[in-house]
Amino acid sequence: MALIVQKYGGSSVADAEKIASVARRVAESARGHRVVVVVSAMGKTTDGLVALARQVTPSPEPREMDMLLATGEQVTIALLAMALHALGLRARSFTGPQVGMRTDRAHTRARIKAITAERVSRALDAGEVAVVAGFQGLSDEDEITTLGRGGSDLTAVALAATLGADVCEIYTDVDGVYTADPNVVPDARKLGRVAYDEMLEMASLGARVLQSRSVEFAKKHGVTVHVRSTFKPDPGTLVTKEEHAMEEVVVTGVTHDRNQSKISILRVPDRPGIAAQTFGAIAERNIVVDMIVQNISRDGYTDMSFTVPRGDHARAVAALEAVARAIGAQGVVHDERIAKVSIIGVGMRSHSGVAAKMFATLSREGINIQMISTSEIAVSCVIEDKYAELAVRALHDAFEVGRGSAS
Amino acid sequence: MALIVQKYGGSSVADAEKIASVARRVAESARGHRVVVVVSAMGKTTDGLVALARQVTPSPEPREMDMLLATGEQVTIALLAMALHALGLRARSFTGPQVGMRTDRAHTRARIKAITAERVSRALDAGEVAVVAGFQGLSDEDEITTLGRGGSDLTAVALAATLGADVCEIYTDVDGVYTADPNVVPDARKLGRVAYDEMLEMASLGARVLQSRSVEFAKKHGVTVHVRSTFKPDPGTLVTKEEHAMEEVVVTGVTHDRNQSKISILRVPDRPGIAAQTFGAIAERNIVVDMIVQNISRDGYTDMSFTVPRGDHARAVAALEAVARAIGAQGVVHDERIAKVSIIGVGMRSHSGVAAKMFATLSREGINIQMISTSEIAVSCVIEDKYAELAVRALHDAFEVGRGSAS
Repeated sequence: MALIVQKYGGSSVADAEKIASVARRVAESARGHRVVVVVSAMGKTTDGLVALARQVTPSPEPREMDMLLATGEQVTIALLAMALHALGLRARSFTGPQVGMRTDRAHTRARIKAITAERVSRALDAGEVAVVAGFQGLSDEDEITTLGRGGSDLTAVALAATLGADVCEIYTDVDGVYTADPNVVPDARKLGRVAYDEMLEMASLGARVLQSRSVEFAKKHGVTVHVRSTFKPDPGTLVTKEEHAMEEVVVTGVTHDRNQSKISILRVPDRPGIAAQTFGAIAERNIVVDMIVQNISRDGYTDMSFTVPRGDHARAVAALEAVARAIGAQGVVHDERIAKVSIIGVGMRSHSGVAAKMFATLSREGINIQMISTSEIAVSCVIEDKYAELAVRALHDAFEVGRGSAS
Repeated sequence: MALIVQKYGGSSVADAEKIASVARRVAESARGHRVVVVVSAMGKTTDGLVALARQVTPSPEPREMDMLLATGEQVTIALLAMALHALGLRARSFTGPQVGMRTDRAHTRARIKAITAERVSRALDAGEVAVVAGFQGLSDEDEITTLGRGGSDLTAVALAATLGADVCEIYTDVDGVYTADPNVVPDARKLGRVAYDEMLEMASLGARVLQSRSVEFAKKHGVTVHVRSTFKPDPGTLVTKEEHAMEEVVVTGVTHDRNQSKISILRVPDRPGIAAQTFGAIAERNIVVDMIVQNISRDGYTDMSFTVPRGDHARAVAALEAVARAIGAQGVVHDERIAKVSIIGVGMRSHSGVAAKMFATLSREGINIQMISTSEIAVSCVIEDKYAELAVRALHDAFEVGRGSAS
């Protein structure tokens, strides 16, 4: 009898009818398995609570924000337990504090320190389905905390690790992880299996199925994650440790991200402290920098380029123009109409020529590469925005990702 | 520096604007006093959650109902704490479990066993306003419980008892306890002070300011309760222990209740077990019986009359017709168009002639008395519904309640 942790997000439990439908799905799994279910707040509940808080004060204290937001998941667990009872199942709901989800005291973005899950184990032993509120925990000071974005996924993965579950199933509105965006590449293929590191690159590069944080946790604790559809019965994608069979495959997926913009500071004096000063100005404004490229200097000067989320573009440019003057750079140029395309695959570590083949493919399509960045398992290029789909299709084709056997 | 516990009900905190207004009121008290605030769920939130549960299943399990309903107060405490911060006050919200509100395990109608209130004391010592969720607690099994109707009042009174507060202020949409319903008796007077026992009679007899349960708790633990208006600054009514000065007053208030209906079983055989059989049939259907009158028997038969809430009238009649057949009674007669009028006063214990004066007053107005019931501090008469206002005005006048000095 396997132990399964299932997680259903807000859109899967948006109303009473959808909760009943999730209950039926849980009931199916509960025939023959021990099941723990983690749920998020219903639909747009969290947004509604945030809006309510802002009506009261423009800057709510994080501790009270957590007190407020934690109610969202608590509503869902109670309703799902009721729906399971209505199907004749034994079920019991638990808040984050009740399952001993201990976190640090960083309100609204707490990190998990430990989980006892003692009450979950007792419920399972008693033949009950345990329904657990995602996203929330308790600090050592007995304050209610929340885990921030992707917190419910993290709750599920962490519970799976603690309980030694056979699998952690993440139910979403897509049915798995694809070799590329199926809207762009018609012959994109659903991956049966993907390695943690590949999924990490994919998560951060635009395939927003699973937050990086949950993948990192799963990797660290060896939890097998199954990303699958709430609405279809088919198996989805297993996110798991790298296997030997996977080494044959060079490129597992092609991703693209159109939410970035590019900024360059020109003729920056090449001396220590300049990079710190530049990125310090951006960090102060809570802007997340994605790619950073700096080439070798010539004549004591260098150019520095990087990408930031498109929504932060104007603020970043304003901040950098001040920095450029202060450090004696020539000026700032920027471009919002860019896209980042990446090829990802654990296999490329040990294969030469992968990056070269990517550049050649783009060149053959007449696409100019503006920036390049590489990691152990990914190569990313910034190109003109209008070529994004063309680039993804060409790369998907060139690396034969659609015909691979990555699963 | 006095310690004040304040309680604001759902209509006082129905939206962000009203919460801000309550915060201003709390801030005033917090100048020079230590303040604990107990709040209910916002407006119709609880009704909304109940409706949501019924969409999921017609008979939600009480444990899960408590899990669900407890979120209502948790939302309010977070928002009120934020509103107090916005006014520059230091404040901290606490759930029922966080303040150590321990109850028995009777979900949806739990009884308080003990309160530690340790975190409330710490907050007060740190100069913070403690904002506490009413209505909710924690069983010895660490299950979330709720206290049932009037639960937030009870939380406030119980906290006041535990903390040794100087006063427990209950803020409502009326500005105090009146000698009679001001809508019926124009010269009804607000009582400055009323004894616990008088308030208990008033609460159960129709002046729905404060639930009997909270008054009983306040009496038992000697908590002075101040019933006052959320919207006006004037002092309201102190509910407190009986004082010597009060003995001079015979009648403190006149109440009426139009939500009852009368049922009689005629020619009931006068033998042991008959009353048990009759009221057993009513109790099985969860119908609450108010007055019960049975006169001496004649020829081995008696008539039995009682009142039930008007909404339960039809069900009660149906049940009793079956009982009447079974016990060989002559039949059942019933009347929905009745009202109960009562005079209340601790003083009447030691005064003769009070009941006689009540009957004479009603007679003088041509009002027939259908049933009579007396307690230590009240006399109640059932009369025809259409005479209710006339009876209340006549009694208010006859006993000079409006001109008394009950305070």
